[in-house]
Amino acid sequence: MEQKELKDVLSAVAEGKITTDEALTKIKLAPFDDISIANIDTHRGIRQGVSEVIYGGGKSPEQINIIGHRLWENGQGTILITRMSEEAAEYFVKDIPFTYFKEAKVGLIGEKIKPKHDGYILVATGGTSDIPVAEEAALTAEILGSKVERVYDVGVAGIHRLLSRMELIMNARVIIAIAGMEGALASVIGGLADCPVIAVPTSIGYGSAFGGVTALLSMLNSCASGVSVVNIDNGFGAGYLAGMINNMETKYE
Amino acid sequence: MEQKELKDVLSAVAEGKITTDEALTKIKLAPFDDISIANIDTHRGIRQGVSEVIYGGGKSPEQINIIGHRLWENGQGTILITRMSEEAAEYFVKDIPFTYFKEAKVGLIGEKIKPKHDGYILVATGGTSDIPVAEEAALTAEILGSKVERVYDVGVAGIHRLLSRMELIMNARVIIAIAGMEGALASVIGGLADCPVIAVPTSIGYGSAFGGVTALLSMLNSCASGVSVVNIDNGFGAGYLAGMINNMETKYE
Amino acid sequence: MEQKELKDVLSAVAEGKITTDEALTKIKLAPFDDISIANIDTHRGIRQGVSEVIYGGGKSPEQINIIGHRLWENGQGTILITRMSEEAAEYFVKDIPFTYFKEAKVGLIGEKIKPKHDGYILVATGGTSDIPVAEEAALTAEILGSKVERVYDVGVAGIHRLLSRMELIMNARVIIAIAGMEGALASVIGGLADCPVIAVPTSIGYGSAFGGVTALLSMLNSCASGVSVVNIDNGFGAGYLAGMINNMETKYE
Amino acid sequence: MEQKELKDVLSAVAEGKITTDEALTKIKLAPFDDISIANIDTHRGIRQGVSEVIYGGGKSPEQINIIGHRLWENGQGTILITRMSEEAAEYFVKDIPFTYFKEAKVGLIGEKIKPKHDGYILVATGGTSDIPVAEEAALTAEILGSKVERVYDVGVAGIHRLLSRMELIMNARVIIAIAGMEGALASVIGGLADCPVIAVPTSIGYGSAFGGVTALLSMLNSCASGVSVVNIDNGFGAGYLAGMINNMETKYE
Amino acid sequence: MEQKELKDVLSAVAEGKITTDEALTKIKLAPFDDISIANIDTHRGIRQGVSEVIYGGGKSPEQINIIGHRLWENGQGTILITRMSEEAAEYFVKDIPFTYFKEAKVGLIGEKIKPKHDGYILVATGGTSDIPVAEEAALTAEILGSKVERVYDVGVAGIHRLLSRMELIMNARVIIAIAGMEGALASVIGGLADCPVIAVPTSIGYGSAFGGVTALLSMLNSCASGVSVVNIDNGFGAGYLAGMINNMETKYE
Amino acid sequence: MEQKELKDVLSAVAEGKITTDEALTKIKLAPFDDISIANIDTHRGIRQGVSEVIYGGGKSPEQINIIGHRLWENGQGTILITRMSEEAAEYFVKDIPFTYFKEAKVGLIGEKIKPKHDGYILVATGGTSDIPVAEEAALTAEILGSKVERVYDVGVAGIHRLLSRMELIMNARVIIAIAGMEGALASVIGGLADCPVIAVPTSIGYGSAFGGVTALLSMLNSCASGVSVVNIDNGFGAGYLAGMINNMETKYE
Amino acid sequence: MEQKELKDVLSAVAEGKITTDEALTKIKLAPFDDISIANIDTHRGIRQGVSEVIYGGGKSPEQINIIGHRLWENGQGTILITRMSEEAAEYFVKDIPFTYFKEAKVGLIGEKIKPKHDGYILVATGGTSDIPVAEEAALTAEILGSKVERVYDVGVAGIHRLLSRMELIMNARVIIAIAGMEGALASVIGGLADCPVIAVPTSIGYGSAFGGVTALLSMLNSCASGVSVVNIDNGFGAGYLAGMINNMETKYE
Amino acid sequence: MEQKELKDVLSAVAEGKITTDEALTKIKLAPFDDISIANIDTHRGIRQGVSEVIYGGGKSPEQINIIGHRLWENGQGTILITRMSEEAAEYFVKDIPFTYFKEAKVGLIGEKIKPKHDGYILVATGGTSDIPVAEEAALTAEILGSKVERVYDVGVAGIHRLLSRMELIMNARVIIAIAGMEGALASVIGGLADCPVIAVPTSIGYGSAFGGVTALLSMLNSCASGVSVVNIDNGFGAGYLAGMINNMETKYE
Repeated sequence: MEQKELKDVLSAVAEGKITTDEALTKIKLAPFDDISIANIDTHRGIRQGVSEVIYGGGKSPEQINIIGHRLWENGQGTILITRMSEEAAEYFVKDIPFTYFKEAKVGLIGEKIKPKHDGYILVATGGTSDIPVAEEAALTAEILGSKVERVYDVGVAGIHRLLSRMELIMNARVIIAIAGMEGALASVIGGLADCPVIAVPTSIGYGSAFGGVTALLSMLNSCASGVSVVNIDNGFGAGYLAGMINNMETKYE
Repeated sequence: MEQKELKDVLSAVAEGKITTDEALTKIKLAPFDDISIANIDTHRGIRQGVSEVIYGGGKSPEQINIIGHRLWENGQGTILITRMSEEAAEYFVKDIPFTYFKEAKVGLIGEKIKPKHDGYILVATGGTSDIPVAEEAALTAEILGSKVERVYDVGVAGIHRLLSRMELIMNARVIIAIAGMEGALASVIGGLADCPVIAVPTSIGYGSAFGGVTALLSMLNSCASGVSVVNIDNGFGAGYLAGMINNMETKYE
Repeated sequence: MEQKELKDVLSAVAEGKITTDEALTKIKLAPFDDISIANIDTHRGIRQGVSEVIYGGGKSPEQINIIGHRLWENGQGTILITRMSEEAAEYFVKDIPFTYFKEAKVGLIGEKIKPKHDGYILVATGGTSDIPVAEEAALTAEILGSKVERVYDVGVAGIHRLLSRMELIMNARVIIAIAGMEGALASVIGGLADCPVIAVPTSIGYGSAFGGVTALLSMLNSCASGVSVVNIDNGFGAGYLAGMINNMETKYE
Repeated sequence: MEQKELKDVLSAVAEGKITTDEALTKIKLAPFDDISIANIDTHRGIRQGVSEVIYGGGKSPEQINIIGHRLWENGQGTILITRMSEEAAEYFVKDIPFTYFKEAKVGLIGEKIKPKHDGYILVATGGTSDIPVAEEAALTAEILGSKVERVYDVGVAGIHRLLSRMELIMNARVIIAIAGMEGALASVIGGLADCPVIAVPTSIGYGSAFGGVTALLSMLNSCASGVSVVNIDNGFGAGYLAGMINNMETKYE
Repeated sequence: MEQKELKDVLSAVAEGKITTDEALTKIKLAPFDDISIANIDTHRGIRQGVSEVIYGGGKSPEQINIIGHRLWENGQGTILITRMSEEAAEYFVKDIPFTYFKEAKVGLIGEKIKPKHDGYILVATGGTSDIPVAEEAALTAEILGSKVERVYDVGVAGIHRLLSRMELIMNARVIIAIAGMEGALASVIGGLADCPVIAVPTSIGYGSAFGGVTALLSMLNSCASGVSVVNIDNGFGAGYLAGMINNMETKYE
Repeated sequence: MEQKELKDVLSAVAEGKITTDEALTKIKLAPFDDISIANIDTHRGIRQGVSEVIYGGGKSPEQINIIGHRLWENGQGTILITRMSEEAAEYFVKDIPFTYFKEAKVGLIGEKIKPKHDGYILVATGGTSDIPVAEEAALTAEILGSKVERVYDVGVAGIHRLLSRMELIMNARVIIAIAGMEGALASVIGGLADCPVIAVPTSIGYGSAFGGVTALLSMLNSCASGVSVVNIDNGFGAGYLAGMINNMETKYE
Repeated sequence: MEQKELKDVLSAVAEGKITTDEALTKIKLAPFDDISIANIDTHRGIRQGVSEVIYGGGKSPEQINIIGHRLWENGQGTILITRMSEEAAEYFVKDIPFTYFKEAKVGLIGEKIKPKHDGYILVATGGTSDIPVAEEAALTAEILGSKVERVYDVGVAGIHRLLSRMELIMNARVIIAIAGMEGALASVIGGLADCPVIAVPTSIGYGSAFGGVTALLSMLNSCASGVSVVNIDNGFGAGYLAGMINNMETKYE
Repeated sequence: MEQKELKDVLSAVAEGKITTDEALTKIKLAPFDDISIANIDTHRGIRQGVSEVIYGGGKSPEQINIIGHRLWENGQGTILITRMSEEAAEYFVKDIPFTYFKEAKVGLIGEKIKPKHDGYILVATGGTSDIPVAEEAALTAEILGSKVERVYDVGVAGIHRLLSRMELIMNARVIIAIAGMEGALASVIGGLADCPVIAVPTSIGYGSAFGGVTALLSMLNSCASGVSVVNIDNGFGAGYLAGMINNMETKYE
């Protein structure tokens, strides 16, 4: 409840337009409404009526189907579903626009949000096994309104492959560096690039890769500046954050 | 070496203006110059001749003094020194403009870069013990050209203190959330805010806080979107990255 | 063997009503009875003939069936079975009153103990995936004689959901805070509430959630006072302890 | 802000007793006041004007002295200072009633709160090295208004020492079990007692005791019901929680 | 090669009974023969021709069958097979005396070695889930020639069950204490008993039991003297060592 | 309380020799008296009046001096003090027979117990840095009545040094194998010897030796039978256990 | 691009033999060509047209078939496929020379490279369960052109088995020591041998073997000089490195 | 004892030149001599009378002085002392040729062994803080007879610095890659180079660098072939192994 609205309510009471009880009800609902509706909720997805995210992880095909349809009916034009199993995708009733991206386990109800500018997010992986995580990141960013470029399998063991994509790296607005094993890709890209780098460790590797812990630690200790890290295999988190950074409004300039 | 410059050199050779050997020398230096000077180095600090960072951690007072003076003489107008001990600050020869921020262990040669806009980075801490890390982050961002707001000691155990700063949180362009112990601050702020949140675990706490590991793990597992993490106590890294995001050019709009 | 009973036996001997040998037999059985029945065993469940707990974890459907029936025949009016598989529930011979709570994997022979007062235990979860653990806790407490209120899916990433249940939180006698991932719920509730908070980490999450270890560490390091922690996914332990606290006799006042 | 108070403000506006602006100010401050003053703050310590806790850990002798005096002047009759160094105790200006408990590193301004009943908290330790933690727990509970009994050095390696205190154990309202090394004391007491047991692992031990981690894990895995755990060496946390449980009002009976 | 044998070879050379080359071959093979045949091999099992152990863990039913029969044919009267699957037991060709102990996954070819004295090894477990490991230990000891007493499910959460077996504990020559979860049984027994205690952590428990690591650490940190530890679930190792201690010859008295 | 004693009490009541109340007191105290006095205490050290152990670790020079003298006055002929600092040894009032072993940090009041037979315990170390732990083990065993042989610095990196002591190894009754770094000594000796091997990991090593954890894990996973492990640097524990095994009575033969 | 080549291009421009644009294209491609083609790629496998390695781990049978055939058609005479499932081997179209080594999960297209000399790599294992890893190492080395000797199941628990192969050990040019459990084999061989030892921890063992971590740590802490370590179960890595060392050219002598 | 020597002894017996007893004594000493002198010891350092290594770590200045002088007197021409403190270097009696390398904490008695060829070992570090470890490695290799090239501070965060040393990398016979923090240097060099790479993690870094563990794990998981790893900060081990590889005799060609 904005200060002005509150003032209006109070004026209405002072002027006898509404009763004290009516005012009471309005104001009582305000404190958390104020926080939740006007402020907090807007931050989830990017503004009401535009996009929404369903975390498909622990949900049944039935649940995803129901929630997805309900959100669509509420007027959400772009609904992203992460960690959606093939089974859930098959179960989904296709009476509304629906696309399924199998490798990324991502579902989309409606359409990708159109990017506002040509600046792109670069999604890079160390190996081919990292691609499912990369696609989750790339699709998340694309669906939420960013242009994305992909360079896959450019791990540091063959650094020339990475260097040959120098131009793409140097011109990106945000880079998502995804790697398992020793995760050195994030450090090398962090040392080359001039923009924020979001590092995503993957659970790829064996033995002392410890399901992604080695890559995670490696990325946290990157000697390059401008690198931050999200959880193991968290492609969605990286794509979401990259999109947020890429689409920052520059209201102050 | 930009394509145009190379073409100029080649034309000069073709036109006999410079000898083959002179061209050779120019071009031989290019490959890594190309990478390093034009591209890579620009990312370190924000463009040559403007700012530079000295990591004071493993360096002696003498070394810091020499490097600092040399950079200044090379025309760097803003030189940030991190992890600078009081001893090193005292030793530093003050024949050039120098300021020392004791709590943050940060030194500044020259002047802070003037912010280009009024958008601010919010630096928040869970407790008062996190303040040295917070000041390192805040000063790094300020020196490299961002406006910074500070809200300290707003840990989740007294959530009303945090909620009472709602306006500052909702209007920030980037937030740095700094906390030790269980590090829940990052999740709560991540759930409230609408902008990128950089989480910094600190080594504050005892017993099973494990020198910041608990806070680090907690932050990596934040259930809020838009949160990424840097290394334990890495105030500089957070401030640098936040500044980078805050000052992103919007060349594409 | 209560002190009074022992005194009765001794009096009977003194009065020649029973022989020394008869007394011997009665007392010989006593020492551990003394310890176990009068003292120790009473603490398991809440007093003999009233309730008993069967840990169904490592037991076969056959074993659970036999033990359950035997306890019932011994006059236990309320028998709680934890970690009871659906298979075991189906196998259970229903010739005695039996209820199965599928989500919580809890079985009940007989009836819930009637609460002695209206004070309630609040069971709160961070997400919907934590509900099975929460139901184990809630049903344990209910069956052993406490009133329970549930608030599920109030994780700190959307703190307004939690704050909107403020009244329930402020009026609880004991709170069980259940969360996976970063487990911040315990700290936030601990900071809001005025009563003992029992934190239960769950194995929900992926990557560096490490099967509940991150939530566990986070909860142990809660900066709020009045919070203690039980093992990962230990809904029963939390419910049992909460019931114990909720039903403390105030014999001294 | 209670519903009634809000109604009064609205009535005052309706009746023209206060202006719209005056009402605006009152109500604007309410949302968080509502949460913080009436609800949250009361939970810290046990009700305003009665007791307050200063965490002396990261604070200088000067800071502790100032805060302590200010709280006293504000009318707090009982102020507990934890982790107070001897140096800080010496520095403290004794113009107000002050007591220092050296072994526990606990300071007390004013007087211990008088217990409301004769029920006691039992503080037990496995060894003599655990006593400083035990004293922190015991004094915290005593200062905040509970009667405390101490049984020290009753570790399980000499179980008869523990068993010989059976009566004290069986009659306690809450038990704090403190142990380092393998931390088995909590399990054994949990198996004997009939009341809530708060287990405190200590950093006592060497080699694979890992600074209290072994005791912590051991306690979390206690096979006895009714046991919960706080952080390593967290005597204050245990004492505070035990006091809270011991003094639960039984308003519902 | 015993000194006498070597002397014989040398004498044979001196006397011209064997050639220098024949002697060379004999002596060249000696160094390791000397070590291996006369000394080392005798230690495996308890003396050749008496007993032998087959570690069935990574072996196929076919391999176990062949090795078992071959050893029997070589005159081994007692052959113990550990970690033998039911499948392998069924596959085993029963044309030689063979017994299979299903719970312990132990197979026996031939007969148990007859104990030389009445002193017994006590095998104790904390819970019923520890019994398979306990049976592996007990059968190993019995088969290799020791008398064994079993007391199962005497965990410390109900210490009276353990205390009621005091006589068995006090009179044992060696005790094997087997427990999962917090593993406190080893400490309590170590504190009660007057003989060597071999602690076996089991992988029983969940959450922070970490597959036996908590019990292992707890046992290593036992505050009782006379306790040593073997690997998680290593019933065989404990039974073997206990048998070795129980059957020590007292040649020196 | 033996059955006979109980019968006597009952008869006394029947005969009116003692009152019912007197009998009640006698019987009520019995259960734990029975356990603690008659049984448990005898196990500490090796029978009262013979030897006693003071763990000097957390005790002040004053405390050690007092306890040592008191035990001596109570007729203990052999008192072992472990982890006794040089300072404590100097402080100790030498009006009673006292010897200090500096390298082992072991103090002895009175005399070593005379061995009952010639069988010896072999104490072996991998390196020279392990010697302090080895001496603690060796002196503990010697003081408590065993003959000890020492072979130091026979680490597996120079296996011939170990093999050259084959005879000592093959004839030992118990072996204590002490090593840091990778701790392989225990496995190699376990593979050579025919007697119980007690492995003691030491905190010697750097980097990934992790203060003895690597050696500890290595020893727990020894592929040789007959090996058990005690805590890191726990020379006393190994010496005590070895002495217990070496001096086992063979009452049954 | 070598300096001479660059000079030639420049001269050609100066002499008007090529246009400025043609020169531009040549030079622009040079920097990374220079690095990647001439230098980097040669290192993969041992020189183009000779051998190539396909990591079969995350690849489908179809992918392996296609890549294998394509490489063969490109003239690679020796193509090693690691981690190739039986399924993939069956699927592989045998119209080109193909051999499958089932135990090692290694495929070979074409022929093993003929060794250049008789020096051999010794592959040793602690147990029979380590053989699959050993065969991966041995076949990798053989296929890439080295002679290999195998000594399997020579673990340190029966050191005579190892010592009896002394001659093979002393004459090897490189040794690969493979072991699980406590991994002591690497230390013992490192102490015996006079050549580089590559240690490979395996995931063999249970309980505190932690899937190879114990062996890994043990090997990293080997007290013998000349030992280095590769990842758990990384037979290929060890075989590749051993082959590289064994075939070092001695161009300088 | 070489085969020929043994034959001589036997012939002498056969010819009656020495008695059987004299032969016995000679041969009895042989077995371990055989192993130790002829075989094992030669591997320590590089052949008797040439070089020897003293691990100065746990030794006093006095001990180092004595051992150093004794070895010199025995005719060792090159004696390397590692981990030698400045204090020990000052204490060392300079009556024999002695050089101290302060940064590496390496002492040298006598002279460096002259390299046999011009092939060099490249020692590379990620940062300047890694230099002490690098110098330990470099000096070890130089003293034991290898030519060494150094490239320091070429961490992957500024990859152009590394690439500008391409020629040195491509022509090395062995590379020692030394780095702390995320240790990515080993992977990048492993991907560029064509020779064995020995990776040395250093304890440089803070927070989640965990004293070198992150670098260690990262290096073990290097996706490049030809990389193996030694313990944290183990410059000596790397230098020793590199020298061994660099000086391999090619007797078979």
